[in-house]
Amino acid sequence: MHFTGAHILSISQFDSNDVERLFKVADAMEPYARREKRTRVLDGAILGNLFFEPSTRTRVSFGCAFNLLGGHVRETSDIKASAISKGESLYDTARVISGYSDIVAMRHPTAGSVEEFARASRVPVVNAGDGPSEHPSQALLDLYTIRKELNIRGPVAGLRIAMVGDLKHGRTVHSLSKLLSLYRDIHFTLVSPRALAMPGDIVEHLRRAGHSVVETDNMEEGLHNNDTVYLTRIQEERFQSQQEADLYRGKFRLNQAIYTQHCKPNTVIMHPLPRDSRAEANELDNDMNEHPSLAIFRQTDNGVLIRMALFALVLGVADAVDKHAEEVGWYTAKRFRRVPSAEV
Amino acid sequence: MHFTGAHILSISQFDSNDVERLFKVADAMEPYARREKRTRVLDGAILGNLFFEPSTRTRVSFGCAFNLLGGHVRETSDIKASAISKGESLYDTARVISGYSDIVAMRHPTAGSVEEFARASRVPVVNAGDGPSEHPSQALLDLYTIRKELNIRGPVAGLRIAMVGDLKHGRTVHSLSKLLSLYRDIHFTLVSPRALAMPGDIVEHLRRAGHSVVETDNMEEGLHNNDTVYLTRIQEERFQSQQEADLYRGKFRLNQAIYTQHCKPNTVIMHPLPRDSRAEANELDNDMNEHPSLAIFRQTDNGVLIRMALFALVLGVADAVDKHAEEVGWYTAKRFRRVPSAEV
Amino acid sequence: MHFTGAHILSISQFDSNDVERLFKVADAMEPYARREKRTRVLDGAILGNLFFEPSTRTRVSFGCAFNLLGGHVRETSDIKASAISKGESLYDTARVISGYSDIVAMRHPTAGSVEEFARASRVPVVNAGDGPSEHPSQALLDLYTIRKELNIRGPVAGLRIAMVGDLKHGRTVHSLSKLLSLYRDIHFTLVSPRALAMPGDIVEHLRRAGHSVVETDNMEEGLHNNDTVYLTRIQEERFQSQQEADLYRGKFRLNQAIYTQHCKPNTVIMHPLPRDSRAEANELDNDMNEHPSLAIFRQTDNGVLIRMALFALVLGVADAVDKHAEEVGWYTAKRFRRVPSAEV
Repeated sequence: MHFTGAHILSISQFDSNDVERLFKVADAMEPYARREKRTRVLDGAILGNLFFEPSTRTRVSFGCAFNLLGGHVRETSDIKASAISKGESLYDTARVISGYSDIVAMRHPTAGSVEEFARASRVPVVNAGDGPSEHPSQALLDLYTIRKELNIRGPVAGLRIAMVGDLKHGRTVHSLSKLLSLYRDIHFTLVSPRALAMPGDIVEHLRRAGHSVVETDNMEEGLHNNDTVYLTRIQEERFQSQQEADLYRGKFRLNQAIYTQHCKPNTVIMHPLPRDSRAEANELDNDMNEHPSLAIFRQTDNGVLIRMALFALVLGVADAVDKHAEEVGWYTAKRFRRVPSAEV
Repeated sequence: MHFTGAHILSISQFDSNDVERLFKVADAMEPYARREKRTRVLDGAILGNLFFEPSTRTRVSFGCAFNLLGGHVRETSDIKASAISKGESLYDTARVISGYSDIVAMRHPTAGSVEEFARASRVPVVNAGDGPSEHPSQALLDLYTIRKELNIRGPVAGLRIAMVGDLKHGRTVHSLSKLLSLYRDIHFTLVSPRALAMPGDIVEHLRRAGHSVVETDNMEEGLHNNDTVYLTRIQEERFQSQQEADLYRGKFRLNQAIYTQHCKPNTVIMHPLPRDSRAEANELDNDMNEHPSLAIFRQTDNGVLIRMALFALVLGVADAVDKHAEEVGWYTAKRFRRVPSAEV
Repeated sequence: MHFTGAHILSISQFDSNDVERLFKVADAMEPYARREKRTRVLDGAILGNLFFEPSTRTRVSFGCAFNLLGGHVRETSDIKASAISKGESLYDTARVISGYSDIVAMRHPTAGSVEEFARASRVPVVNAGDGPSEHPSQALLDLYTIRKELNIRGPVAGLRIAMVGDLKHGRTVHSLSKLLSLYRDIHFTLVSPRALAMPGDIVEHLRRAGHSVVETDNMEEGLHNNDTVYLTRIQEERFQSQQEADLYRGKFRLNQAIYTQHCKPNTVIMHPLPRDSRAEANELDNDMNEHPSLAIFRQTDNGVLIRMALFALVLGVADAVDKHAEEVGWYTAKRFRRVPSAEV
């Protein structure tokens, strides 16, 4: 892919060379995200941060990534579906908003809407999630996290990953699967209730690409012998009856005791967040919060690096970031407290 | 008008010299809006972007204009009418908010409220729309667009313009009419259902100022022999009965076929947006989207120039913008794709 | 207190030396807030302005303070209680959001929540109000205002202050009382309906610290012989019956006539805002608006200075602000119109 000026709409745009290029730039962003340096490379540029549905985490992550490169952020999180129902087309919105910005990050509840917007936009558009469809920066930050946590340089050939939870509806596990299928010899263990299994076409795609796929509804079986376990939320409301939901209650729970008993030492634990932290959630227990293998907050930190890298590449400044570097003069010491990977 | 330090509340503050001064500054802003250069002239200044009712388009336009001059934007789009009903006066809000900002852009649902706010404000206030009353930057960007599209330098004497749609309630056509009345010999064709005709006092004002005014409810007749056709939305809910609304359904529609049959070649098509783009809207069809005479997105682009010019003049930096100019180092090539006027 | 890197959660963290240090830095911020100079000391830093409940005034004040030091602001005012009820813990939110920012200002409806967030945060957190509990920057700006208005340099020993209104529920009067108790020989006159009296433990605390406390429900008596009168809103809905509320209607009203008759000349009038300005509110009348002793808008102006000082101290740049100073080139003349203290 030629990054400069491109829309970033789907994980399917990326081949493994693109991923390597992106991750190398993301690595170079780390001193800025850690506030060891700052850069003004995008001083004067404007990000149109356009959220048609609320998402504090992703919206702020994109905004901070742009600020860290020195740019301004103009934000919209109050576009209501009602405005769209009054008849303004995405074409019109795109023509107008793209006149205000240098680049747009956009989230929308409807699959395909970001692509539709991008076709009419006069500036590059980054998909920040279009309903059940795509959220490419999430899959990229997930893969980036896997490599960093496992200290893998280059392609992740031979990776053993379990994906756990609602694999039917989970946008993140679909995209991550597609992205991992670019590499050789990945061992997927897909753990879900049968009613929430990974869609057949994705499983087919993985197998045809030469990867090993095991499907199971047995958590303990699924946890064994992985490098990474990727948890997603089981949404009880997905089931047809409460009885059916009750069958699975607690079956996909991970806590310290279960981790110690069933996971290989140092198995990396990931989750796209938000997680339900209430005791009855039976998802990913708070007793894992300080566990060194819990990577979930390093995941969100990595999201800033990946988004900085996407902005830098699309706006053609990846090689200029360091030229505009300056010192940081304010307090930053506590910043990465209790974040092991940052101390490497 | 002495711009520096002034409130910009109403189009009636402007005489034709003010308009010329403003448009000259707007012209000088174009390289910055096109990202050929950037400027830090307002680096450190703060715009209070104060929206008491939602308006993505206008809010972001003001914010971007200020960012393009190098300033910060602090935004409020969540002030509810409820807060006002709890008894805080606009006087208090103005005293407080003006202590935080260097300039305020304000939208409010109530006519006269921005002026009331401005009286108590300690910094200049720009009216971004006060209900049915005024929205001066819109009328200015409309006139600016007319001149640019028709390649007119200086006063627009002799202009032939049709205004179409709901001329009774349309704030934009009222303000544009007043602004155009500053020039000589304008030919107004006012096309609307009789129930939605231009208010009599405005028609009177135009005639007394020496302009020609023709009123009609016949679209085809109205389209003939104009330099510019300015469309506004017919809101069906304005009519007393559905039967009455049905009488007009489709009568004020513009599409390629109608344009070709009834408009002079190169007649400029304008619209204040948003437009209803659904097929049944019968307003301004999508088949005009790529038509070179459709100026509606150049209109919104021009809005940024006009707002930059207003900020620069009111804050007294119009002559300093270029002194703080710097190079743009990031990708901007696609920016004005398919925008003919920008390629001049 | 060692400010650098500290969380600012409660007024009880401050001793009188901390207050002197903070106020000295706040004084040094005044030329920047008045736009006589600007500074880039925090150029590149990011404030996470995290509001779990709406508050235009306080949110914008924190944001502007950070902008005036040169930093970026990423804002969230749309976190709904619903999101929290879906089970995300403050721990998770804090771990994530603190990865994006250099410092966080946070408001939340629940007492203790900001402290809980701060424990998990990797960056310093400033409490911008946690429900009925604490709002330390408000108490600090109140005390700062008292000193400035009375032209007191150093500790406020011997101050005579009346607090009027709902002293039972008023977070601001509780915090200000605690802060004033750090000094010697304060004379408190507490004016409220008996049902809304200052909580007994606070009165006890003040008396044990050697201060004089007089409690009364008689406004006229209470107004006599003070240096400062601090008004708060009587919320009629607090009373058990309308009859009871009616008993107090208008009894705690302040207007020009009452001020002249009952207050010592030059008694400073304060109010935490918002005030109910409607005629029937019987609170603090609009006829005081231009009175030179009405300090309520200088109070909010001082809020910017205090928040700038807190940011500068916590981020360790208080001594570097002037080193990054630059000239202001834009119009600022009307800025402090009718604000006497700024003309000293």
